[in-house]
Amino acid sequence: MEHPEEAVEDRADESLLVRVSPAGLGDARRGARVDRAQDPRTRRTRAAIVEAATTLFLRHGYQGTSTDEIARLAAVSKRTVYNNFGDKERLFTEIVLGTTVTAERLADELASELPHAEDVPGALRDVAHRLLETVTRPLVLQLRRLLIAEARRFPDLAREYYRGAPGRTLGALAAAFESLAERGALVVPDPQRAAEHFAFLVLGATLDRAMFEGERSVPSPAERQRTADDAARAFLAAYGAR
Amino acid sequence: MEHPEEAVEDRADESLLVRVSPAGLGDARRGARVDRAQDPRTRRTRAAIVEAATTLFLRHGYQGTSTDEIARLAAVSKRTVYNNFGDKERLFTEIVLGTTVTAERLADELASELPHAEDVPGALRDVAHRLLETVTRPLVLQLRRLLIAEARRFPDLAREYYRGAPGRTLGALAAAFESLAERGALVVPDPQRAAEHFAFLVLGATLDRAMFEGERSVPSPAERQRTADDAARAFLAAYGAR
Repeated sequence: MEHPEEAVEDRADESLLVRVSPAGLGDARRGARVDRAQDPRTRRTRAAIVEAATTLFLRHGYQGTSTDEIARLAAVSKRTVYNNFGDKERLFTEIVLGTTVTAERLADELASELPHAEDVPGALRDVAHRLLETVTRPLVLQLRRLLIAEARRFPDLAREYYRGAPGRTLGALAAAFESLAERGALVVPDPQRAAEHFAFLVLGATLDRAMFEGERSVPSPAERQRTADDAARAFLAAYGAR
Repeated sequence: MEHPEEAVEDRADESLLVRVSPAGLGDARRGARVDRAQDPRTRRTRAAIVEAATTLFLRHGYQGTSTDEIARLAAVSKRTVYNNFGDKERLFTEIVLGTTVTAERLADELASELPHAEDVPGALRDVAHRLLETVTRPLVLQLRRLLIAEARRFPDLAREYYRGAPGRTLGALAAAFESLAERGALVVPDPQRAAEHFAFLVLGATLDRAMFEGERSVPSPAERQRTADDAARAFLAAYGAR
């Protein structure tokens, strides 16, 4: 799950939860905002704008995309874009940070599952495979390229994305490896380093090549499975309990 | 050594070698071209253009840089830029591919030294450190970001850079690990995979973060040394002879 439009839907769902919390606590303004976000027509409009903007940003970059073009592709007025998202920069920011929801999910899964795994080698292979599948999705690869391209113009956004996505995943891996070491299932002198080693044994070569050659350079599903298995094997050789 | 202007100087030196080869074999046109490239004034002019163009491309991107601005910063006429490099696209291509000279050098060193190393763990630590130092130079990081940003506009150039720099280094590592395995110093079922594991144990985390956060995120020399040592240790645990 990493389509930005779904991410926005997710946040609309969170607003929904706010709305069903004790009604008396919400002030009128918040109530109005929540009602608007919940309105199916508003949600469809916002999703259409996010989808159009994502398509155009990924195809033409930030500078090469105008709010006019976004409105035209989404079949809404320019005013509707501004009313829903403010300016182009805020729309871009919202789309980028919306995609970190994927990393949050993966990090949450890692944190809850990996420390309690019974078959540690099997669990590591599984995590390696999920990590590789997540990061090699075309949208994630394209978004990474776009953000790297725009990192000079938007240094804070690039930093926030890094912390929210790759950084968060590394943090969750480090915590999980520390737990596994406490159980005696791994030997981990430096959990953060172990997390970096795991992540880039899995992702490094595929991801680096895809940054230059695009998503068509991503290998087949069978080869990705081998990549994940080989990474887990090398990691266990370095960090497995003897 | 990775300054593009030095790379261009290098190629000027190669022209020099052509010139001192049997004189009778050179036709008049080649002689004229070589004389021009050898002329110290021409070499200074070309170096000034490459330096100005590199500065502007890295600062403002390809689209954000005009031949006018390059000429102005290099203190030459626009015609001089065209006479020496053709158009902006050819100048950009020449600068990008000029930087792969660094990777060529590193690959040549690896190929000639690593297979004969007496202290294999020490040699791996040394290679890890040299690789990390090379790739985390500000110019290399900035050029990688620029090329990733322009990969959609220049897919062939991005592919050529990937093959000439990261790809070439991986190939040299794979060949060296295969030799070491033949000597019984390593156990390497898949040399290409072993090369990927080595390279991204060394580079992965530092390089990925620097793509988003820029060269200021590159850790201190002492921390880079630890990163290289930890990578070599993990690699040996996975691929060392028992």
